[in-house]
Amino acid sequence: MKLNLEIQKEISSQWFKFLQFQICKEFEILERKKNKKFNNKIFKKRSWQKSQKNLNQGGGISAIMRDGLVFESLGVNFSKVSGKFSKRFRSQILGAKKNPNYWASGISIVAHMKNPKIPAMHFNTRFIVTSKKWFGGGMDATPALKDPKEKKLFHKKIRQMCNKHNMKYYLKYKKWCDNYFYLPHRNEARGIGGIFFDYKKSNWKKDFRFVQDSGLCFLECATSIIEKKFSTKWSKKDKDKQLEKRGRYVEFNLLYDKGTKFGLNTGGNTEAILMSLPPIAKWK
Amino acid sequence: MKLNLEIQKEISSQWFKFLQFQICKEFEILERKKNKKFNNKIFKKRSWQKSQKNLNQGGGISAIMRDGLVFESLGVNFSKVSGKFSKRFRSQILGAKKNPNYWASGISIVAHMKNPKIPAMHFNTRFIVTSKKWFGGGMDATPALKDPKEKKLFHKKIRQMCNKHNMKYYLKYKKWCDNYFYLPHRNEARGIGGIFFDYKKSNWKKDFRFVQDSGLCFLECATSIIEKKFSTKWSKKDKDKQLEKRGRYVEFNLLYDKGTKFGLNTGGNTEAILMSLPPIAKWK
Repeated sequence: MKLNLEIQKEISSQWFKFLQFQICKEFEILERKKNKKFNNKIFKKRSWQKSQKNLNQGGGISAIMRDGLVFESLGVNFSKVSGKFSKRFRSQILGAKKNPNYWASGISIVAHMKNPKIPAMHFNTRFIVTSKKWFGGGMDATPALKDPKEKKLFHKKIRQMCNKHNMKYYLKYKKWCDNYFYLPHRNEARGIGGIFFDYKKSNWKKDFRFVQDSGLCFLECATSIIEKKFSTKWSKKDKDKQLEKRGRYVEFNLLYDKGTKFGLNTGGNTEAILMSLPPIAKWK
Repeated sequence: MKLNLEIQKEISSQWFKFLQFQICKEFEILERKKNKKFNNKIFKKRSWQKSQKNLNQGGGISAIMRDGLVFESLGVNFSKVSGKFSKRFRSQILGAKKNPNYWASGISIVAHMKNPKIPAMHFNTRFIVTSKKWFGGGMDATPALKDPKEKKLFHKKIRQMCNKHNMKYYLKYKKWCDNYFYLPHRNEARGIGGIFFDYKKSNWKKDFRFVQDSGLCFLECATSIIEKKFSTKWSKKDKDKQLEKRGRYVEFNLLYDKGTKFGLNTGGNTEAILMSLPPIAKWK
């Protein structure tokens, strides 16, 4: 059965919403394991509308956790929005030159950890419809302290997931990730990479299954990385290194990140978009 | 006597360098008043070259103070550079479309204060030469805590300085400043404003005198604001407010600031450019 566009929109946005629910649930379990005292509402969940006047433009649900013992800050955001790109922004978006209308839905997660030995982790997948339609997304990790074993394991899990779909995906998307999460002004990578893909539009059903698997793979990677270091000790020096690394994270997200620009330029929810910024950061 | 372009470049860059020296000297006196223990070298001064291969492209001198008792971080940067704008960047610069060569010199100062009751302060002036030539610059203050008296005094001094040159300058440049130092995604002003001007190219000698006076006015404003609050006490809550306000400062500088983009896009010195970022910032 060939799915028409409206059904594709519905299925993909339902998936992103479900994944948000699932990730919140599992991350909450992790936090509660360490944090017996946390009051009942771990996540601050908020629904937001893009336009109070025009509810057709959609909105999203942001789920934010702050000051946990595992997650120093965690944002798990779902959105489903539509609108018209501004003139200035149109030329930068695939398929928006002739027709500026768009529809987009996605899930985006950024976790900044209390323990500086656990890397910051990021995941995002989205389905965007202009006169074209495509999936995009990726995941990557940003440790403040080196851990070659962890890096190896992270990439191994991602590679295995990719290989189930296409033997070429891992290397292609890993390279894309390395190129994307890079700070040219620092001549530095943001972290240890992962995968990044965009304009994915060969076969909707196959692409969608890959997008689904990416989400589940992220959840597995994140929980296993966190659980391994759940109880490790750290020093003030480790923490300082983390805060400095976070400074770089802020630089990347505000200077270069396409998702941040897309969100802020299309009237998205500022709080939800900037949940990617850490609770505290340092510059030397 | 009509000054030719080469002499204008020489005079303006000499001024920016002198002003750097002067401001460093006075700010060092302020810091030493409070800080008897600071070791002899308060400023870390560094000369940098834009290109190791081609010294004709110029460079600058960055003077940076960290962890003072008055100045938590202070950058006073002088630069004098030339080069060719990249294709992508050309269209954004006045007079660079036909001829991508440029010459630019300027001074830029950002002070983040230890005491959250003293505002962060910023000043910048520059002379840019493409197929056109013009001055730009401005100054503004960003308090974390409201102080209407201070705001009034700051603007009064600037207005008086402006009025000596042209009765229209203050209102015009104040408005420009309010529009420029604005965070649309937050619907917030960066601070209490000041003045901002760009593409100033009516009469070189008059414009240059205004640029000079702006620098001296900033120095006077900054020292008097700092001296007034030199010894005031503050609470952890005040400090937290400041760290959050600094988060907004980071957002503005990385998302919108033209000087930051100009610097990073033209191969400027990253350390010198990003000295505008605070030593530590928070996001709630």
